[in-house]
Order: sequence, then structure tokens, then C-alpha cells
Amino acid sequence: MFHLLDIIGTMAFAMSGALTAMNKKLDPFGVFIIAFVTAVGGGTLRDVMIGRTPVGWMLDLKYVYVIIVGFLLALLFRKKMDKLRKSLFLFDTIGLGVFTLVGLEKGINVGLHPIICIAIGTMTACFGGVTRDILCNEIPVIFRKEIYATICILGGIVFFSIKRLVKSKSKQND
Amino acid sequence: MFHLLDIIGTMAFAMSGALTAMNKKLDPFGVFIIAFVTAVGGGTLRDVMIGRTPVGWMLDLKYVYVIIVGFLLALLFRKKMDKLRKSLFLFDTIGLGVFTLVGLEKGINVGLHPIICIAIGTMTACFGGVTRDILCNEIPVIFRKEIYATICILGGIVFFSIKRLVKSKSKQND
Amino acid sequence: MFHLLDIIGTMAFAMSGALTAMNKKLDPFGVFIIAFVTAVGGGTLRDVMIGRTPVGWMLDLKYVYVIIVGFLLALLFRKKMDKLRKSLFLFDTIGLGVFTLVGLEKGINVGLHPIICIAIGTMTACFGGVTRDILCNEIPVIFRKEIYATICILGGIVFFSIKRLVKSKSKQND
Repeated sequence: MFHLLDIIGTMAFAMSGALTAMNKKLDPFGVFIIAFVTAVGGGTLRDVMIGRTPVGWMLDLKYVYVIIVGFLLALLFRKKMDKLRKSLFLFDTIGLGVFTLVGLEKGINVGLHPIICIAIGTMTACFGGVTRDILCNEIPVIFRKEIYATICILGGIVFFSIKRLVKSKSKQND
Repeated sequence: MFHLLDIIGTMAFAMSGALTAMNKKLDPFGVFIIAFVTAVGGGTLRDVMIGRTPVGWMLDLKYVYVIIVGFLLALLFRKKMDKLRKSLFLFDTIGLGVFTLVGLEKGINVGLHPIICIAIGTMTACFGGVTRDILCNEIPVIFRKEIYATICILGGIVFFSIKRLVKSKSKQND
Repeated sequence: MFHLLDIIGTMAFAMSGALTAMNKKLDPFGVFIIAFVTAVGGGTLRDVMIGRTPVGWMLDLKYVYVIIVGFLLALLFRKKMDKLRKSLFLFDTIGLGVFTLVGLEKGINVGLHPIICIAIGTMTACFGGVTRDILCNEIPVIFRKEIYATICILGGIVFFSIKRLVKSKSKQND
């Protein structure tokens, strides 16, 4: 299940990155790089900090393919997606939620403290978008729209509580 | 002793980050993130580059607590601190000096060459502030006020010479 | 041979960084830091992501010396070099080409997939310059001049094909 979430988040962030870069009028190569960095940035930071190297996307070509698909979709359906994106912040929200969960899961696997896991989840979710905004020379949107980051932290706390409950139950069953 | 220095530096940088972010009129969440990143940024870069993963602050909740205290202090005593900060660059200077020493110590522990240790100390000290300024979309202050970085390099050289002296003496005593 | 290429690329990027920083009127310390970061940035990112820590330049003082020489050359022959640089993008182009090859080689050594190796080569080549531009608060030049990045990807593909050919031949000879 976490695997599927990872794919969905990667796709959502790749599209979000590509759309932002196109609005900045970068050339196609620049658009692809921004899409790539937005999609893998958070996961790369997380893997590097917890010591899972080589980082995830290097060991599995699937991520590269997903990003290419997201990039092409953004290129082809730019206008429709731009509308969705502006009115709903659709792709960012999906990506944030999904990547928070994935980041939490990885933190738990390494055996870190719940609070640290929430920090890792938040970073995984936010870092791609922050890098995108820095590369495009803007103040990161995350610092201007607190609601999304707050949601993603709360989501993390909820997730961790559930996870813990499930774990303690499965231990009782053993 | 290095442990205490690490705490002092973390607190100083957390306050420096929070004050800068408040002056940029970020929302509370943004202010906390900037405080967090300013405080742990240098140490994270250092740990990742020398291969100490998971990075230091992930293994010890103390850093998170210290940053929260620094963040709250900055929030509560904003006006008083802002005055101290502007006239003396107080928090930056404390953080720079202290983090240079901590970075040096870690480099020595991994057995790197003195010159590299000084580079690591300088980076540990400067990177948090550089990230803070990039996130707030300014040219990093370190590149505009050479005096602080120079102090921190000189401090490193002095420290290393003393350390070496102490070591060679303790070897003689063995 | 890759060792020599690494030295040439480091020197070229150190000069490119120093010249950019001088044009931004940074003080000498700032100029040196930008030269240093431009020269080691790409390799640091690469080593950290594939898990070769401590990163390359920490284990070998040669890089520090080469950067100091590049920094001094840029300081002394600023005007002549600035002309060369503007008309030919000389240093960037040399650095890009050379670092793509070096990055590819390291990726192959870790046993990663060819496509990932090309991505690593591209990142090694581009990241130093991107960091330089972000530190100087500009939209990275790489996103405005697609030609260079495209060249560096194509170069990577060519290199990998040749490398593969050579390997399969040497296996036949065994």
C-alpha cells in the first residue's frame, strides 16, 4: 500500500512541478528538471538523512518512468490542469498528504521516535515543493499558506496513533 | 562540554531563525520551520557529508525541545531580542562560534585532515544561516558581512592548534 | 584518466564560481566560498546520494588546493577571464562536460542502471552551478540556457554506450 502511495505522490508532485515551471516560462529541459526535483526532492532528503543510500529512486527505474508520464501529462493537458491546480491546489495537496505517510513509514522502519517520524514525514512532503520554489526564485509557498503544512502534520499525528494501535493489537494476538 | 556547546548553539540559531522569519511576516508555522532549519541545518549537512546517519537531531529529542523553547522565547520576547540582535548580532555570533567548535570536533573524531575539519566547522556554523536567508529569499548575510565567517575560521584554527597540543601532551603522559 | 578529468572540472568550476561572485561584488571571503561550493557542490550531492561518505573532497586535500589555485587565478586575471567566459561560457562548458563523465563513472561503479547513471552525471555537472546561482539570488542559468544541459545529457548517453561496448569486448577477451 505504501508503494502505491509513493507512486501517486511522485506523479502528483511531478505534475505540480511541471506546471509551476511552465508558468515561469522555462524551456522544456528546465520544466523536466523542476518536475524531477519536485518529485524526488523530499524522498532524497529523507533517505540521505536516515542513511538509506543509494537513495530510493536510484534503485528503481519506476520513479523515473512515473515522472516522465507526469511531465508529459502536464505538457499535454496544461490548461485543464492549471485550472484544477489553481482552484483546488489539487496536486500539491495529494502529494503532501501521501508523502507525509510514506515519510512516516520510513522513519518508523528505522526505529526513530514518533515525534522525529512526524518531522521526517513533514520534510518528505514539503521539501520537494520548497526546492521547486527556490529554483524558481520565489518565497516557498509552504511559508505563505500555513494550512497545508498544518494538515500534513496533523495527518502524521493521526496516522502514527493508528499505526501504534494496530501494532500493539497485533502484538497482543501473537 | 561539546554537548553543552551544541545545546547553546542550537538555542541561539533557533532564536535567530525565528526572529528573521517574524520580521519577514511569515505565519507561525513558517516561523517554526525556519527556526528549526536554521538550528539543525548546519549539523545535518555535516552529518550527511561525513556519513553519520541518521543525523544527530533524529536520535535525540533534546534538540527538538531546545528548538521549541528557543522558538517560544523569540515569540514572547520579540521586541527585546530584536534590539539585542540588531545591535550585537548576538545570537548569530554565539551560534557561529559554538557550532564551529562542534563541527571541528566531529571532523576530528572521523579522523579527517585539520584543514578539512576547519572547512567542516565553518560549514556547520554557516549553513543554517545560509539556508535561513535562502528560504527568506535574500542574499545570504554571510556573504555580505565577512567579519563573522572570518572570525569563525580563525576560531577553528586556534581551536585545532590547542586541541593538537593537548593531545600530544596527553600522549607524552601515557 | 577520470582522476585528471575531476581535477580539470574542479578548477574550471572554481574559476566560474569566483568570476560570478566577483561580478556580484561579494567580499573576498564570499568569493572563495562560492568558488568552493561551485566546485565541490555537484560531487558532494552525488557522493551523499549514492552513499560514498565522507564525501570525496574531504578525503583528499588535492581538491582544496586546486580550488585555491582556481580562486587565485580568477582573482589575478579577472578581466581576461571574464572576456573568455562571456564569449564562450568556457569554464562552465568544460566543467559540465568533464563532471558528467566523472558522475557517470561513479554511478557505474556502484552498479546503478545506465539511465540513473546519466541522471547522476547530469546532477554532478549541474548542481554546483545551480547552487552558485541560488546563493547569488538568481534563477539558475541552467534553466535559461537549455543547450548546455542538453549537451551534457547527450554526452552522457554517448559515453555510456562507448563504455558498455568496451566492457563487453573486454569480457569477450577474458
